[in-house]
Amino acid sequence: MAGVDYLADERNKAEFDVNEMKIVWAGSRHAFELSDRISRLVASDPAFRKDNRPMLSRKELFKNTLRKTAHAWKRINELRLTEEEANKLRFYVDEPAFADLHWGMFVPAIKGQGTDEQHQKWLPLAYKMQIIGCYAQTELGHGSNVQGLETTATFDPQTDEFIIHSPTLTSSKWWPGGLGKVSTHAVVYARLITDGKDHGVHGFIVQLRSLDDHSPLPGIIVGDIGMKFGNGAYNTMDNGVLRFDHVRIPRNQMLMRVSQVTREGKYKQSNVPRQLVYGTMVYVRQVIVSDASYALSRAVCIATRYSCVRRQFGSQNGGAETQVIDYKTQQNRLFPLLASAYAFRFVSEWLKWLYTDVMQRLQANDFSTLPEAHACTAGLKSLTTSATADGIEECRKLCGGHGYLCSSGLPELFAVYVPACTYEGDNTVLLLQVARFLMKTVSQLGSGKKPVGTISYMEQAEHLMKCRCEVQRAEDWLKPSVILEVFEARATRMSVACAQNLSKFANPEEGFSELLADLVEAAIAHCQLIVVSKFIEKLRQDIPGKGVKQVLGMLCNIYALHILHKNLGDFVSTGCITSKQASLANEQLRSLYSQVRPNAVALVDSFNYTDHFLGSVLGRYDGNVYPNLYEEAWKDPLNDSVVPDGYHEYIRPILKQQLRTARL
Amino acid sequence: MAGVDYLADERNKAEFDVNEMKIVWAGSRHAFELSDRISRLVASDPAFRKDNRPMLSRKELFKNTLRKTAHAWKRINELRLTEEEANKLRFYVDEPAFADLHWGMFVPAIKGQGTDEQHQKWLPLAYKMQIIGCYAQTELGHGSNVQGLETTATFDPQTDEFIIHSPTLTSSKWWPGGLGKVSTHAVVYARLITDGKDHGVHGFIVQLRSLDDHSPLPGIIVGDIGMKFGNGAYNTMDNGVLRFDHVRIPRNQMLMRVSQVTREGKYKQSNVPRQLVYGTMVYVRQVIVSDASYALSRAVCIATRYSCVRRQFGSQNGGAETQVIDYKTQQNRLFPLLASAYAFRFVSEWLKWLYTDVMQRLQANDFSTLPEAHACTAGLKSLTTSATADGIEECRKLCGGHGYLCSSGLPELFAVYVPACTYEGDNTVLLLQVARFLMKTVSQLGSGKKPVGTISYMEQAEHLMKCRCEVQRAEDWLKPSVILEVFEARATRMSVACAQNLSKFANPEEGFSELLADLVEAAIAHCQLIVVSKFIEKLRQDIPGKGVKQVLGMLCNIYALHILHKNLGDFVSTGCITSKQASLANEQLRSLYSQVRPNAVALVDSFNYTDHFLGSVLGRYDGNVYPNLYEEAWKDPLNDSVVPDGYHEYIRPILKQQLRTARL
Repeated sequence: MAGVDYLADERNKAEFDVNEMKIVWAGSRHAFELSDRISRLVASDPAFRKDNRPMLSRKELFKNTLRKTAHAWKRINELRLTEEEANKLRFYVDEPAFADLHWGMFVPAIKGQGTDEQHQKWLPLAYKMQIIGCYAQTELGHGSNVQGLETTATFDPQTDEFIIHSPTLTSSKWWPGGLGKVSTHAVVYARLITDGKDHGVHGFIVQLRSLDDHSPLPGIIVGDIGMKFGNGAYNTMDNGVLRFDHVRIPRNQMLMRVSQVTREGKYKQSNVPRQLVYGTMVYVRQVIVSDASYALSRAVCIATRYSCVRRQFGSQNGGAETQVIDYKTQQNRLFPLLASAYAFRFVSEWLKWLYTDVMQRLQANDFSTLPEAHACTAGLKSLTTSATADGIEECRKLCGGHGYLCSSGLPELFAVYVPACTYEGDNTVLLLQVARFLMKTVSQLGSGKKPVGTISYMEQAEHLMKCRCEVQRAEDWLKPSVILEVFEARATRMSVACAQNLSKFANPEEGFSELLADLVEAAIAHCQLIVVSKFIEKLRQDIPGKGVKQVLGMLCNIYALHILHKNLGDFVSTGCITSKQASLANEQLRSLYSQVRPNAVALVDSFNYTDHFLGSVLGRYDGNVYPNLYEEAWKDPLNDSVVPDGYHEYIRPILKQQLRTARL
Repeated sequence: MAGVDYLADERNKAEFDVNEMKIVWAGSRHAFELSDRISRLVASDPAFRKDNRPMLSRKELFKNTLRKTAHAWKRINELRLTEEEANKLRFYVDEPAFADLHWGMFVPAIKGQGTDEQHQKWLPLAYKMQIIGCYAQTELGHGSNVQGLETTATFDPQTDEFIIHSPTLTSSKWWPGGLGKVSTHAVVYARLITDGKDHGVHGFIVQLRSLDDHSPLPGIIVGDIGMKFGNGAYNTMDNGVLRFDHVRIPRNQMLMRVSQVTREGKYKQSNVPRQLVYGTMVYVRQVIVSDASYALSRAVCIATRYSCVRRQFGSQNGGAETQVIDYKTQQNRLFPLLASAYAFRFVSEWLKWLYTDVMQRLQANDFSTLPEAHACTAGLKSLTTSATADGIEECRKLCGGHGYLCSSGLPELFAVYVPACTYEGDNTVLLLQVARFLMKTVSQLGSGKKPVGTISYMEQAEHLMKCRCEVQRAEDWLKPSVILEVFEARATRMSVACAQNLSKFANPEEGFSELLADLVEAAIAHCQLIVVSKFIEKLRQDIPGKGVKQVLGMLCNIYALHILHKNLGDFVSTGCITSKQASLANEQLRSLYSQVRPNAVALVDSFNYTDHFLGSVLGRYDGNVYPNLYEEAWKDPLNDSVVPDGYHEYIRPILKQQLRTARL
């Protein structure tokens, strides 16, 4: 039966050109070809096998990751891969490892915060991996509140050194990936103290381990912080703990691009704008939003294919049962997630553009769009990662009981993904930053300061506060202008309502604290509007390929109308739509589900994921699920012997009523 | 510092009698004392240690579970524990094991479906565990649709035997707990075939393994289905796969209480009402709802205590930072879950009553309340398990980054809990059963057939369709009668709207399929009303103890108003409340959060969980989190050596630029 495609019927139903959709998903023909080539390279290399991951003990798992990382680095060098290709390779190897932090955080921190001399000294070493670095910011007692970090870096003018020290247990660095067992160096964030004065948190390059024998340097205690959520998953990473006992580093290892300490111990600011750090933040968050679309699309791909394979109930006259994807309950949970994967993909592409725009403006000392760009990236990071974490688990449940097996791939995908809701800004804390920005924008309405970018809709606040939705028939809900207006009206009205409630408090900060929950909801409304509007913008572009634009249009409407339904209270209670219009939206949604249905498998095929990358028996391209699920079971170590280890000590004495005398 | 209580300040703030609340939570003084005694017994026995569970390999983990199970059974016999005490002991050992299925499914199946002679033969063996049994129903290809099972039991009149056979790969039994490695016997569900005629699915007692050496009997292939979600978690259980190749069993091993096959191969029904099986179903689901309250309360206990320990932001003049529990965003996520834990506890107590009521009626051949009891337990199983699964993950996120560590206890709690959303009825499938019942009830309104029990509110459908909520001030939302009426009105209006939409379809089944998503929402509205109304009923009882009833009243209002807020679209779009009233509800909710705040730690102390049972460094009773988190980290196997295994092969060659020649 090798080579039989059990999903061929599904693929034949598609009403659009899958190859063109693959290019839309990838972002460009170049991106598609690169991605396709590298993913096959990884999938065909047995060194990157990962199906045994959940069964390995922590030590085996970690050693295995070390091996894969070395192999990947070897291949990158042998094949002379570009940076873009190397990144894709690490992406498709699909196993968190110290190298992610070295390339993703350590190198960028030096690049962004180091001086030219520091670049010349450290970057060549880092580029060749002659040193391996991590990013040591968070502490046992402080994560979200970076300004509360306790580690100190005290300047000693006698020796021209900084003394790095962990004054308390809670000041132990805690969580940095790659720190626990591998990194030779770290960018350590510590309170800079000169002459008894605290200048706040700054970054320092600190060597942690000997380059000769890898042992920790004097004064340094370092180790792994222990097991994390899930089988395999993030346990391939050596997230670490680190304590300093008066460790001395030369003065020139403080990252001095923005501020300096002189030989005399004087603290100075350079004329480099501090706002540059926001550029990095926009970049990192764009990557996170992009990763959200990849993670969610993997889960959706698995759940969609298996929902076509799986049949349950509805057999008539002994015929085949109904494919579970044909149930409206399944569609109502699955298709909005499929639409979300595409929506997040497009908004992350737009964020890429935003990043270049922000960087160009920063170079030109134009900081005017920065608050808006900052709020928008913070909000989108929060929105997409929360939706993706929930969405993966929903996809797992959509696979029924079998989704609970590691061989479905979904448990590990969930476990490895969820920290994205917490790292690089806790999702709730980020939404409050968006809310502050919204309140500021509302307070400036009519002041002559024009709202820009994603918040520019507030310019029409007056209209949006009183406009009435014109929908009279279900089809009216297909008009982008109608959808945009109700989303803009809802976001505006929720922000304005919060602002009005805030104004009732004598102390604004007290009011803000009291109304936090409402403010979070207003922020979410704003962010959902951004995603919807960027999807609509995408559809205004020229998109070639038979049926491609049409089916993307369906997904855009599904995304918007599903969000509307899930947050109906917002829309109806602010008077943006009537309950009659809400039920027309529901009617339209059902009709859209029927339209998307024949395209479902082709829409997930368009992600172009190899079976290796998906890592799921349920999501196999060929749909040949059950024989493989059955085969997979026998690989469990428990099946090494027919009679289990422990039978003689613990089962037989029960059966033979000999427990009283058994040694347990 | 041993013995210091870092949460003492929190405990001193409580405004109610914690000891009395413990009794309310447990259900009675007897239940409290039993629970307290058994939980301490387990916690103090080093054989039941579980903190190392996430680090064990599958084989070590499983062997360890066998040891604990044998030890538990030994202690149960030594201490001559009652059945109630033995159940509690297994509960507090807190490790899924084959014995759960033996006692929870195998024994009850024989009791419920076996004849008197079968009881006499099999139960004594099972009670002494001279045989160990499991419950083999689900197959690789069929879970939800029990009537679609493929395994056959064909009567052979020649030999007076049944031939049990697995005709296809998808007919392999798949998932039964205890099957994979331990059970000697199983109740196997198979299609009964006599003389070529298929009589549907029936239960059969089948021996699987030799009682001499534990090897599978001829014709039987049996093994474990492999790793499942999470570290430790359900991997302690040997969920199994089982195939039969024409295995013969004597005729008297068909469970014959309800239907029989005679020596001649004639199929007969006895006069025992088939409805008796519903009694068992009500019982099992009551246990599941009760377990939901325990699982959710554990997560809430951990998150509440750690939210008091953890401080972030808000330091003024160098003082302590703000306890995260004081943020309204934290309260808005945490307190509704605290309220839900209590709400589920009380509704499960009521379900216990419902079970005895149903059983008494069945004995008296009164089947009138059965459809309502069935719908109500199906719905509550679905509602509480979904809310609990989501709630545990929310609690994990409420603990920030540290919730991702296994030592927080939350990852394992989530992973071990989530299958409850799928087993004993997939939660969506169950809600559709509720929806069918609701549509039937609506169709019978005015027909003279009076709705009973939890659906009796529909008697006032006429009033509920047009009533207007009287709330004018935030305090009005504290009135139970107001809350009940809006929940009843919402549930009625959603059901009636579905019924009206259904009536537009020529083919009712087609309409039902098309409107599945709306029907699910109507069912949820009905179930949420049940939980709210049972909480309110509980508060009408006499509850002794200073402040106990008052603080429970706050929780009841939080539960109801939070549900109202989360489902605002339902309430507003059906005209049950106005948007003005919605914002008054929000205002009241904020005020309730402030009132509950000082009682938060005492409310989770009232669960009376030992640190052993909680299994969480973050949730420790004494709040001494950070030093213990730090200690815990060093126990990871990766920290056995300072330089990790793999350094010489895979790290050093990178650093020394010797990868080209390295053997990877």
